[in-house]
Amino acid sequence: MYKAGDVRVEKRDDPKIIESTDAVVRLTATCICGSDLWPYRGIEPVDHTAMGHEYVGVVEEVGSDVKNVKVGDFVVGSFVISDNTCEICRSGYQSGCVHREFVAQTVGTQAEKARIPHADGTLVATPGHPDPELIPSLLAASDVLGTGWYGAVAAGAGPGKTVAVVGDGAVGLMAVLAAKQLGAERIIAMSRHPERQELARFYGATDIVEERGDDGVAKIKEITGGLGAHSVVEAVGTQESTMQAIGATRPGGHMGFVGVNYDVAIPGMELFLAGIHTEGGPAPVRRFLPDLIQLIWDRRIDPGKVFDLTLPLDQAAEGYKAMDERRATKVLLTL
Amino acid sequence: MYKAGDVRVEKRDDPKIIESTDAVVRLTATCICGSDLWPYRGIEPVDHTAMGHEYVGVVEEVGSDVKNVKVGDFVVGSFVISDNTCEICRSGYQSGCVHREFVAQTVGTQAEKARIPHADGTLVATPGHPDPELIPSLLAASDVLGTGWYGAVAAGAGPGKTVAVVGDGAVGLMAVLAAKQLGAERIIAMSRHPERQELARFYGATDIVEERGDDGVAKIKEITGGLGAHSVVEAVGTQESTMQAIGATRPGGHMGFVGVNYDVAIPGMELFLAGIHTEGGPAPVRRFLPDLIQLIWDRRIDPGKVFDLTLPLDQAAEGYKAMDERRATKVLLTL
Repeated sequence: MYKAGDVRVEKRDDPKIIESTDAVVRLTATCICGSDLWPYRGIEPVDHTAMGHEYVGVVEEVGSDVKNVKVGDFVVGSFVISDNTCEICRSGYQSGCVHREFVAQTVGTQAEKARIPHADGTLVATPGHPDPELIPSLLAASDVLGTGWYGAVAAGAGPGKTVAVVGDGAVGLMAVLAAKQLGAERIIAMSRHPERQELARFYGATDIVEERGDDGVAKIKEITGGLGAHSVVEAVGTQESTMQAIGATRPGGHMGFVGVNYDVAIPGMELFLAGIHTEGGPAPVRRFLPDLIQLIWDRRIDPGKVFDLTLPLDQAAEGYKAMDERRATKVLLTL
Repeated sequence: MYKAGDVRVEKRDDPKIIESTDAVVRLTATCICGSDLWPYRGIEPVDHTAMGHEYVGVVEEVGSDVKNVKVGDFVVGSFVISDNTCEICRSGYQSGCVHREFVAQTVGTQAEKARIPHADGTLVATPGHPDPELIPSLLAASDVLGTGWYGAVAAGAGPGKTVAVVGDGAVGLMAVLAAKQLGAERIIAMSRHPERQELARFYGATDIVEERGDDGVAKIKEITGGLGAHSVVEAVGTQESTMQAIGATRPGGHMGFVGVNYDVAIPGMELFLAGIHTEGGPAPVRRFLPDLIQLIWDRRIDPGKVFDLTLPLDQAAEGYKAMDERRATKVLLTL
């Protein structure tokens, strides 16, 4: 991305192994993330930046210290680099790893190949080479599925729980899928787009709420006997959506937030009086990857349906445009 | 409190039973809370307001539906009225009860007697009439002990954990006591007052950090191998203390916040990148009261030591002044 709104596909040098813990992956597919729209829209700075942080592909080369993946393996990687051995990783918070790097900042996977640092801690090999129909779902696991899943886990979704999901983008839809898999009793998708409502229902939503802001909060309270939802996932990242999520959570309930929230300021007193749990941030996708890969492999979940536009990598600019104009929820780029 | 800075003790009508779920309690002791300083300093509006929300005493009269306490019982009550039967109460969040009232707003216990609504859900009888030496500790359970305890629980304090406490007021000191009782391995009190440091050590602090703000965060990281504390209790409620608490918490760690935080705005992006759990608000003291009363009864904890000035009720104005000028940490008012 040369500058906001200006995406170009150009020839770059092939990545090489630099550290002994690196791997070079030849990508099978990559995609465009809702968070890529932040720089595209000029909200986040960008200057001739290699874009992309979601990826699946085949390991082409490994450094001398890489043990867990080998050349020829098909791998899915997290959008956050982690060693998966430090104390923070072992506690399940790989996105806070002492060796954390954001793939979006130091790698850029909207490309044919990528050098992945800390390959052992970041990549997970699939049980074999996947059928082509599984590629979109495996790619989703790299970020949107893992992030939506974390949002649902952070929100305490589970049996007997009413879960409300704020946001009907790919991450919000994946949070609906996760809430369903985690056994939630009732899943409320907050959405006003008919096609996304339909997809939300496909993934397990039992209720749709079209209202937003205070009206959305009032509607959630009405549905939940005046109490609010046990579990709320914030998957947008604006001031309104954040306050909507806090307001929709019952006292003692859990709000998981995974929307990247530039310019949000949470009034301390409102959070104080809400009396809720919050947990959020860049998702520790690595924690969930082995289970998510297996669920996809066994065809028990179909997260790949969130991709509603597929383009070859050299048409990436059109993919950004389609997402920016909301003509597409999520764009898969083929190689 | 007639207006900010103007506290007067005057004759009012005796409280009477209004609802069948009320009790009238003749107070044995009451006290002044750090949060009473908000209106005293003009930060919170006040206008001829009956003050006080901490209380112990003897039940003098009960409404016809009161079953759990009887006339003559010695009782400790929470600073939040709760029915203790609704779904929110049963989940342990009595301060979010569907019948919630703040004693500070609707009762006012810096008085000889108080009408306590929802007596069955709010009051807990002690095993018998206490020895006079136990009165300060039982009174502390009504708010500061229960609030500090909740802060430590919300911060996930427990065996193997490093707990940092931001704030050396009565609530912060009680959080230190709670962390110790909950089995924390290391307890860091953030304090720069020698007498409060001493009291923090008495209650179980293993380390004292005098630095504040970014320097305080850096010091906590230095002590914890660069990671931050597992558990941080925020017991002040200012912008600086809140950001200090967030910054001092390791990724995946827990920040419990119990300081009443007027005018605090948490930057969403800082909370997002911190990757922590938060939980806070008005403490569900009622959840902890039975256990806290027993610990006091058995003389296993001595929270009453936080009172460092005792005055008769008619000198309440001097008590406010002493706390405002930081000549006293917490003032007990006798009757």
